[in-house]
Amino acid sequence: MMDQKQEMYEFVNRGDEHYMAHISIDSVIFGFHANQLKVLLVKIRHDDRWALPGGFVRKEETMEEAADRVLRERTGLNNIFLRQFHVFSDIHRSNTEKFLELMRSEGIEVKKNNWLTQRFISVGFYALVNYEDAIPSSNWDSEVCEWFDLQNVGELILDHNKIIESALETMRRQLNFQPIGYNLLPEKFTMPELQRLYETILGKTLDRRNFQRKMLGYGILDRLEERRKGGAHKAPYLYKFNLEQYQKALKEGLQGGW
Amino acid sequence: MMDQKQEMYEFVNRGDEHYMAHISIDSVIFGFHANQLKVLLVKIRHDDRWALPGGFVRKEETMEEAADRVLRERTGLNNIFLRQFHVFSDIHRSNTEKFLELMRSEGIEVKKNNWLTQRFISVGFYALVNYEDAIPSSNWDSEVCEWFDLQNVGELILDHNKIIESALETMRRQLNFQPIGYNLLPEKFTMPELQRLYETILGKTLDRRNFQRKMLGYGILDRLEERRKGGAHKAPYLYKFNLEQYQKALKEGLQGGW
Repeated sequence: MMDQKQEMYEFVNRGDEHYMAHISIDSVIFGFHANQLKVLLVKIRHDDRWALPGGFVRKEETMEEAADRVLRERTGLNNIFLRQFHVFSDIHRSNTEKFLELMRSEGIEVKKNNWLTQRFISVGFYALVNYEDAIPSSNWDSEVCEWFDLQNVGELILDHNKIIESALETMRRQLNFQPIGYNLLPEKFTMPELQRLYETILGKTLDRRNFQRKMLGYGILDRLEERRKGGAHKAPYLYKFNLEQYQKALKEGLQGGW
Repeated sequence: MMDQKQEMYEFVNRGDEHYMAHISIDSVIFGFHANQLKVLLVKIRHDDRWALPGGFVRKEETMEEAADRVLRERTGLNNIFLRQFHVFSDIHRSNTEKFLELMRSEGIEVKKNNWLTQRFISVGFYALVNYEDAIPSSNWDSEVCEWFDLQNVGELILDHNKIIESALETMRRQLNFQPIGYNLLPEKFTMPELQRLYETILGKTLDRRNFQRKMLGYGILDRLEERRKGGAHKAPYLYKFNLEQYQKALKEGLQGGW
């Protein structure tokens, strides 16, 4: 077994024998919990900042295969349906100086024209997952993997704040044409909980009556006999998605404009 | 001035001093004319097949800047709004043998590990343009640039047929949520002409009355006083898009499901 420093040296100085130069992947994994939209971040070893779970593309992998592997390695999450949404290619998006500084402080020699000091474009992927199902873990190059409230991500490395913002815009745009919630809410939920999800993604409040009328009009919800127990007010009804209608709405679109 | 062979030699053997390795761009430019959906193709010099207008990314360019430049150089088209839609990354999508064969027949030496013999991922862009405005031209490495009926593109190089199919799918999906036609139709058009555009993109016929009712229901069309002159039947009304409503519908979505 190589020790950790040796492993890092190999990756830094000979990684381009296995990985494609210039191309990386970053994944924005959204979850919803306690009325908050969450995003999964990793803390990179040897850096005090957080980052999106991301990495590089092996020479024998497609982008999709790489995105799956990277997410699994970085977070322990498996079999998540990731979608490509944008290629980020600002020419100053990388930060070579910061990288070299870290390597110096680690005592790892970086040869001239090292592949990691060159320009990278990054393909952004995103996914919506059930917060309850996800068990964030970590691996050798990311010390910690945690859910963050979207409002509290702080300053991330490189252009990762921008990548999250862009994924959020993609999701907001989708909300105008497609249903959302199947992977974000528990199986049974109340109308206020569904509304809170929409409001959180859109970043604005919605009228309660309009929301309920519109949502019920879509025909994608089944109202259950059960009601939510507990609480001071009249117990609200529980709903679940009618998966057949939900899938149809995903395909055919919905009248939106929230 | 370098002669053409020298220019090609430089590009093939030293292009990676100026261009990013592993990354290319391909653009699917759709137009609509005489009730046919058209796509713009170029014939690559020294090859008997056609291709999407595409190329490489200079080290100081973003993907978007590269896509603009490549389209201008290859087709003479300027200031077209191109959108990224997918990254194509099958590991066998390139065809090194074919490339080497062409170079041999041109008498151009290709050194080992040449950048063009390595794997490329390609970022697909697409655009909808007014067929009448586009004046296809060509440049040094593409002999001819022409509009093709979508049904008659034949077998293109590499995975370019697949890239067109994917762009078409993107457009079909959009058709369920967003209006289309502003850049594809002339300023004034009849309802049958608009219907024919939808039918062509969707690849199926639509009911005339339903189509008209739905389109008028969107509120994105202004009916003009003029009617289309000529023809045996009662002259049909002319319409144009109400740009303000059209923009609003682009943003907020439409009830679709064609």
